[in-house]
This record gives sequence, structure tokens and C-alpha cells, in this order.
Amino acid sequence: MDFFEVIKKRRSVRKFTKTKVPESIMRKCLNASLLAANSSNLQPWEFYWIRKPIKKGKIVEACFHQNAAKTAQEIVVAVSRIDTWKRNRDLIIEDYKKSNKLIPLVKKYYNQIIPFAYYHDRFGVLGLIKRIIFVFINIVGYFKPIIRGPIYKYQLFEAVSKTTALACQNFMMALVAEGFDSCPMEGFDEKRVKKILNLNWQSHVVMIFGVGQAKKNGVYGDRFRIDNKLVIKEV
Amino acid sequence: MDFFEVIKKRRSVRKFTKTKVPESIMRKCLNASLLAANSSNLQPWEFYWIRKPIKKGKIVEACFHQNAAKTAQEIVVAVSRIDTWKRNRDLIIEDYKKSNKLIPLVKKYYNQIIPFAYYHDRFGVLGLIKRIIFVFINIVGYFKPIIRGPIYKYQLFEAVSKTTALACQNFMMALVAEGFDSCPMEGFDEKRVKKILNLNWQSHVVMIFGVGQAKKNGVYGDRFRIDNKLVIKEV
Repeated sequence: MDFFEVIKKRRSVRKFTKTKVPESIMRKCLNASLLAANSSNLQPWEFYWIRKPIKKGKIVEACFHQNAAKTAQEIVVAVSRIDTWKRNRDLIIEDYKKSNKLIPLVKKYYNQIIPFAYYHDRFGVLGLIKRIIFVFINIVGYFKPIIRGPIYKYQLFEAVSKTTALACQNFMMALVAEGFDSCPMEGFDEKRVKKILNLNWQSHVVMIFGVGQAKKNGVYGDRFRIDNKLVIKEV
Repeated sequence: MDFFEVIKKRRSVRKFTKTKVPESIMRKCLNASLLAANSSNLQPWEFYWIRKPIKKGKIVEACFHQNAAKTAQEIVVAVSRIDTWKRNRDLIIEDYKKSNKLIPLVKKYYNQIIPFAYYHDRFGVLGLIKRIIFVFINIVGYFKPIIRGPIYKYQLFEAVSKTTALACQNFMMALVAEGFDSCPMEGFDEKRVKKILNLNWQSHVVMIFGVGQAKKNGVYGDRFRIDNKLVIKEV
């Protein structure tokens, strides 16, 4: 399907038909999402495809039994993590080595700068230490442009969640290109979802997708966007 | 262009040719990004297309003169905001009224729940008050699923930034569909960028795009993704 057709066709669908989504299409769309741009190529995302009926039931409950979850043929939970960077970094470096491209700059970036940005403890002590270090870095910032963060854990979470969202948009679009639909949900009990999926404090649930084929009344109303002049600014 | 072709073709391009990007294509791609899914349809994004050469120079400087900025034909700054919800909410309600669809549930959602989630002050006092309120809400959470946030300002920022990222992915993909390329940059001096664009504390710079046509050596190396089994989990 033509790209701009897909853009126009994608809507958040809240009621799905009983049509099954072929496994191959689920896999194709999940794989497509992983080709999104992402921060330092650290791929801090995870996609949980909920296949066990008991687990699915629990997720639907944690989504307050909303139609988009209840009628969904498939459910996918998108998760962002601040703790997979180490494994992924090692794999990235291995790949650089294989292709003989591990130049000193890249090595330093992944072995010094990334760990400094990504290491965090549960209680935020490292965040406070980084804050103090940044007091000194910020002095340099009076004279020339500098990097301002991430300092605190929550700033890192914003970074990994926005990277994960890039992949999420790919996922939704890929489904439309394959003739299916989705609803990205943010209304859920994150604590319960994390418990169901056995996720630690180093992960956030970014959004949960109901996936299937749109029912006739599955889209609630026409698409409404505010005047684009309000949000696209030429300066 | 076919959707999955676009998915495969999109790469972060760090060196651009001197080929201009037609205005009409820039507009088409910016408009396409606004059709992304977004939280409660509140469209908390802004896209600053930097057209004045002096401003562009300043942004390039705030991006540390990296190639992706320096060689870019066009630069777009994606911003997320926690303060435009009120204006947008009013426009949404107006639209609901026009189509006679402002049911009590929707009215309550936009007039009570959204303000509770989105109101924040600069110093985080409202965040602390919400935290206390959530102590009581969380008691209910022992017995049934509940919404756990956003409580603090930074949680709301994570929400609006991830919504903005959905639009960002559309933007990058749309450019590829039109035969152009981009590089999403996260390495920039946010404080300086905010000053250049006159942005307040209620906004975050989500990413900055260099836009243009890829030079032959504009993509640094082959695409590398870790084994998809590490991040796609069937449970």
C-alpha cells in the first residue's frame, strides 16, 4: 500500500471484528517496528505479544476491560527499558569489531559516555551524583554548547520511551499496510501490567496495543486535528 | 512508495547533498506527521521548521556542528508541550459540539480528568499534592485496576514526548516516501535550543531533524539490529 494512503488510513480502532490476525502478519509488523530510528542504536524497547489466554485476560482487566482491549484479536505491550543497554551495547561493539569499524571515537562513546548516561540505581542516588557533576559541566555551558543530560533516571526514561514510541508508530502503520488495525492504549494499570509481565523497576510500559480488524463502528467519530498553523511553525 | 519499502529504506543520514528539499514536500511531510496517534487527541506537539539562516546557524551550533545538522538543507525541531492541552482541549470540545457528540462521559473526561492530569506548576508543588491524592487512589488499587499516573510533571513530560515521537516517526517515514532523508538528533544543547526558539519550561525538545538528500557516504555503516528474539517476546 502507498505510504501516504497508510498515513491517512491509520485510525485508533476501538472495536474489532472476530477476524484473526495471521501469525505471519503479526511477526512482519513486529519486525518492521524494530527498524525505527533509535537513540545511539541501543534499541531499548521490548514488545510483548500476549498469546496465553490467561495472560491476555489479565491484561484486558488491567486495561479496565475497555473495548479496544476486550475485542482485540491480539494484544501487544510495548515496553521501554533503561537496563538492556549493556547487553545491546556489547552486541553493537561486537558488530563494529566484525566489520573492522570500531574506531576510538565509537569505542569511547559506548564504553564511557553511554554508561555514564545509562547507569542508575533504584533510589536515585546516582541521579543526584550526576546532578552534582552537571553543576560543573554547566559552567562550561556558559561559554559553549554542551549536553545537558540525561541526569536523572526519569530523564533517561523519557529518552527510552520516546525511542520506543518511534517503533510503536511503525508497528501501527505496518498493521494498516497489511490490512489490519490497532488501538494504542495509555489507559491501563501500569503496576498490574508490570506484575503480569514480570517487569522490573527499570522498565516502563509505553503503550498497549489492541490489534485486529476494525468493526464498522470501530472508529469513534471523524478524525479531528487542530489547525496545523498552531503546531507547525516556520521560524 | 510501498510501505515496507519505506520502512527498509529509512536510515539515519548524517551527510546530505546540496539538493534542495521542495517547500511542498516539507509541508506534506510535516502535515503527515500530525496524523499520528496521540494521547487523548491533545496533540501536544510542535514542529519548528527553521527557515531564517541566522536561526539555522544557531541551531547548528547548538547541535555541536555535527554533520547531520551542518550539511542539512532543512532543520526541524520537534517539541513536546504540557501547556497546549487547554487550547487544544477547547478546540476538541468545540468540534464535539459541532457534530453533536459531546456525551457526558467525554465532557467529564476533558473537563475534569485531563485538567487533573495536565495542570502543573514550575516548582512541582502540584506534583506533590497529586502524589498525596494518589496515596488514597492507590488504596483502591489493592482491590481493582486503577490509573497510576501521571503524577509528577516529569511523568507527564514522558507522555507528551512519547506522543510527539509517534509523529516524529511519521515525519521521517514521509520524507523517505518522498525521496528524501533525515537524521533525528538527540545530541544538542537543549537549554540553548529552547532559548533560540523562545520555549518555556513547559516544553521539551524531543529531537532535531536534519533533512535533505543522502550523500553517497551519508549513512555510517550497515544497519545493525540485535536478534529480534531478544526484544519480541511471545508470552
